[in-house]
Amino acid sequence: MNNKVIGIIGGMGPEATADLYMKIIKATDARKDQDHFRVIIDSNAKIPDRTEAILGIGESPVNALVETGKNLEMLGVDVGCIPCITSHYFIDKIQSKLSFPILNALEEVKKYISLCYPDVEKIGVLATSGTIKTGLFEKYLTNTDIIYPSAETQDEMVMKAIYGANGIKSGNTEGEPLDLLKRASNELINKGAELLIAGCTELRLVLRDYHVNVPLIDPMEVLAKAITK
Amino acid sequence: MNNKVIGIIGGMGPEATADLYMKIIKATDARKDQDHFRVIIDSNAKIPDRTEAILGIGESPVNALVETGKNLEMLGVDVGCIPCITSHYFIDKIQSKLSFPILNALEEVKKYISLCYPDVEKIGVLATSGTIKTGLFEKYLTNTDIIYPSAETQDEMVMKAIYGANGIKSGNTEGEPLDLLKRASNELINKGAELLIAGCTELRLVLRDYHVNVPLIDPMEVLAKAITK
Repeated sequence: MNNKVIGIIGGMGPEATADLYMKIIKATDARKDQDHFRVIIDSNAKIPDRTEAILGIGESPVNALVETGKNLEMLGVDVGCIPCITSHYFIDKIQSKLSFPILNALEEVKKYISLCYPDVEKIGVLATSGTIKTGLFEKYLTNTDIIYPSAETQDEMVMKAIYGANGIKSGNTEGEPLDLLKRASNELINKGAELLIAGCTELRLVLRDYHVNVPLIDPMEVLAKAITK
Repeated sequence: MNNKVIGIIGGMGPEATADLYMKIIKATDARKDQDHFRVIIDSNAKIPDRTEAILGIGESPVNALVETGKNLEMLGVDVGCIPCITSHYFIDKIQSKLSFPILNALEEVKKYISLCYPDVEKIGVLATSGTIKTGLFEKYLTNTDIIYPSAETQDEMVMKAIYGANGIKSGNTEGEPLDLLKRASNELINKGAELLIAGCTELRLVLRDYHVNVPLIDPMEVLAKAITK
């Protein structure tokens, strides 16, 4: 039962990695420890910042991501995943160097929305500026309009909630980051978003379903369910 | 900063493993991803049940624990830990086969109690029957009286909370397991325990400081703080 070995190329960030592992555990049909999947995690926090690389102001994370994946390959994982949407910008380069398949979180989100919300026409995305610049959501969610917060909201609310001195990357999951993300969410809903995607894995550590009045999709939850199937 | 690589010999159980990793993250002084430790986790849920082995009714987990540790050794971890108190019964055998040091959670708990609660004379322990049989707490906490629940409470409350159909190992962290553990805790406090140890890593997923009116020590929190020093 549940005999495949799951690999997690992690560390981007560490909390999102631990959180994905917890989601995998919860998505697994198990009555005792031994029913669970063996999961091997290399949470390599030293991987260069993805947003900075995409914005052209920092070192590429590809070599470090591949080296991390190679560790998992060496230990014989059957299928891998990456608990960081922004890193999916580099997924083809990473996949080309690894022998095990990496489940693409964005492809899984596309399948999930097609299945569960087939009539949705406008999707609001909360994500890092790096991810927005990549056009990853437009690339995968081709049948819907994708909307983002205004430039000011993006900088002063979303990015501040993630990277600010009191933000999520500093270990805060309540207070200021939550307030900022609720305000950014409401802007998207007022612009007509029928569904929101928490497009950066860190956001979901703070923003919950009951904080917004439209469905809120957590790509990592979708990924956890897909990888445990 | 924070450059050592931490290894986790995990999977016993999976939730305790994810929880220890989250505790390591929270215990780390970090302002951005790259400030965090690289943490490599082999969460090998297939390791044979430790309690059954100690009680003489199941296969020894030692080979599987060593094999899991060897994976971490191969990837170059500098220091390791085991998020399962019961497994510490086998720690000398595991350590003898591995080149990196494993931080002993029980030794760290002993140091912590000596430092923070030097006057405590009676300690109540909630743990699996396997761990109780090992005498691990008596072995390490030599300066205090160790007390356990009555045999009936142990079976009908503590073990049921962990292994029961609605228990923690089945993924439940509220309701029945919490109720059972609060009742077992109160029995220990009524018997004079001045401090409680959540001696099975799973217990702490349910029982919180505010559920009991004496200090509640989580050996995994102590371990996380020690390994990030």
